[in-house]
Amino acid sequence: MARWHDRRIIDLFGIELPIIQAPMAGATTVEMVVAASNAGGLGSLPSALFGIEQLRDALRQTRARTSKPINVNFFSHVTPDDDPAAQMRWRALLAPYYVELGLDPSAPISGAGRAPFDQSFCEVVEEFKPNVISFHFGLPEKSLVDRVKATGAKVVSSATTVKEAVWLEANGVDAVIAMGLEAGGHRGNFLTADMSTQVGTMALVPQVVDAVSVPVIAAGGISDGRGVAAALMLGASAVQVGTAYLYCPEAKIPAMHAAAVAGAGDDSTAITNVFTGRPARGIVNRIMRELGPLSESVPPFPTAGAALGTVRAKAEADGRDDFTNLWSGQAARLAPRLPAGELTTTLFDHALRVLERHSGGS
Amino acid sequence: MARWHDRRIIDLFGIELPIIQAPMAGATTVEMVVAASNAGGLGSLPSALFGIEQLRDALRQTRARTSKPINVNFFSHVTPDDDPAAQMRWRALLAPYYVELGLDPSAPISGAGRAPFDQSFCEVVEEFKPNVISFHFGLPEKSLVDRVKATGAKVVSSATTVKEAVWLEANGVDAVIAMGLEAGGHRGNFLTADMSTQVGTMALVPQVVDAVSVPVIAAGGISDGRGVAAALMLGASAVQVGTAYLYCPEAKIPAMHAAAVAGAGDDSTAITNVFTGRPARGIVNRIMRELGPLSESVPPFPTAGAALGTVRAKAEADGRDDFTNLWSGQAARLAPRLPAGELTTTLFDHALRVLERHSGGS
Repeated sequence: MARWHDRRIIDLFGIELPIIQAPMAGATTVEMVVAASNAGGLGSLPSALFGIEQLRDALRQTRARTSKPINVNFFSHVTPDDDPAAQMRWRALLAPYYVELGLDPSAPISGAGRAPFDQSFCEVVEEFKPNVISFHFGLPEKSLVDRVKATGAKVVSSATTVKEAVWLEANGVDAVIAMGLEAGGHRGNFLTADMSTQVGTMALVPQVVDAVSVPVIAAGGISDGRGVAAALMLGASAVQVGTAYLYCPEAKIPAMHAAAVAGAGDDSTAITNVFTGRPARGIVNRIMRELGPLSESVPPFPTAGAALGTVRAKAEADGRDDFTNLWSGQAARLAPRLPAGELTTTLFDHALRVLERHSGGS
Repeated sequence: MARWHDRRIIDLFGIELPIIQAPMAGATTVEMVVAASNAGGLGSLPSALFGIEQLRDALRQTRARTSKPINVNFFSHVTPDDDPAAQMRWRALLAPYYVELGLDPSAPISGAGRAPFDQSFCEVVEEFKPNVISFHFGLPEKSLVDRVKATGAKVVSSATTVKEAVWLEANGVDAVIAMGLEAGGHRGNFLTADMSTQVGTMALVPQVVDAVSVPVIAAGGISDGRGVAAALMLGASAVQVGTAYLYCPEAKIPAMHAAAVAGAGDDSTAITNVFTGRPARGIVNRIMRELGPLSESVPPFPTAGAALGTVRAKAEADGRDDFTNLWSGQAARLAPRLPAGELTTTLFDHALRVLERHSGGS
């Protein structure tokens, strides 16, 4: 019988299966987190789109339904200074879409941003003491990391290069997520902004494993047991899977996003910054084709989303996904389409079958 | 004891180890091919930079030194029509470099192109009957493919997307190389020119395996036994390894290329079209930074190389790699630095040890 010999992440987090459900702000629900954790994996609650009270509510609901380890994810970007000129340029680029959709390009917009980890979020962590805290875009300032660690939480963050992994270890993480460029949603890059040199999972994971002494979690392009088993061969101690959880009934995504993911092939996605100002992988749609996928005219994260939000909302009301961020990784097609708990155990069981098939024998 | 259960490529090619030394025009020598094949892998002779008589000579020398199966690789692009306007624009872009190096920007240039597979090359195949013929950039016209197959050769080509893999199978290949975007040198893309949607090895291999019935060879980001074992998990029947063979004493590359590869990290490379007109992965250097890495001002493959060749030669003579194509994949750092024969067996032995470590047990 094949076994998962590498227990470093399993033991570090106190979980049963080396499967981490990726936090996907706007898609992951309490139900998904609970199902993944109760199945023995690590459910991850994304808080980037939450206010403080929303996060408290979500944690109360989660804790009422599972006593298993859970992860809470925070963005740790620095909120940029107001830059009215950059916003003007961006609104001018978007103006033709406003006109096309019958909207007033000069109407005030609401600032639907994403909040970085701060004192207030840290107090929620101290109150609820989640088992694992993961950050995206590096780490918050040291005093906040220290407070998180003082709660007993294990701290992890994503690296898109070896340099980022080494930096994260030097700054105190307990584990590194090696995020290959196949991954959907926001890239975790924080020491580089150069998308042309981002690294594929196959090349990234073993080089990160060689460069750090903390255990490594592989992410990017993993949607079935073959990918889970491959990550193990590369030296990863666990995997983080995002896109496959978008098919779960527990995922809360617009119907047009679900339809796009359901039809996505290997080459349906690209890394784009047009939705938020930071690079993220999504299914190619009209605005990515017309303004991107990567553009130097997009204002800094997370401020791009506000002006785009108005056209997005109107287009979605008209049944069009032209301006919707259809986050997806490159392996959507591989995913078994199952509820979150079953998906978690199936990814692991499938990995064991793959290991079994290719090992032992005489 | 772990074993390599998947024998589809091993049996198809009549080799002993599922390790294919990638054909690297300008770097692979007869010595490298002979060593890889004699070690039980498949040595691959690149002919893209050869004239007919050079290829004959190389095949005579190879055949004198091994009776094991060998692969000969050809480019199967269509030579573009002359486009003096595009050449003028390209030479204008390069003119400042000519001036900087003390060269005359209007001096005639020699057309150092790459020759596609044609009748004459096909006659050499019919004469020498290599066991495997691999193509890059799709396939040549059907009548030529038929003649190659009539020699008894197995025909393979590279796919960078599932669509390309399906096309290759429909057009008669015996195996598909699934070439993830980590791979060094020229991308094999032929149905798409869009680099923003190219796919990482981790995501590409299993999706290609699911889409075709012929066996699949994984390429891209594989430089050690961990990658070989991971490729097996993903469903590949063998791997094609390029960059790791650049460290071999049998590799014939400029000293500055060897030095660049020796120092390359995971994020040292990018996909660029500035050297030849087609996208290829190389270590980022000055011309990639200043004109690319991807530029719409580069004339079509392979005609970009001629005007660049003049500045490249002068800069190299001055000890500078500013204009040299430093082909490398994203996993250079992982490679054991060994002669080609030892590298071939080591990649396999290391893969077996990785499989063994993670399998069986109680």
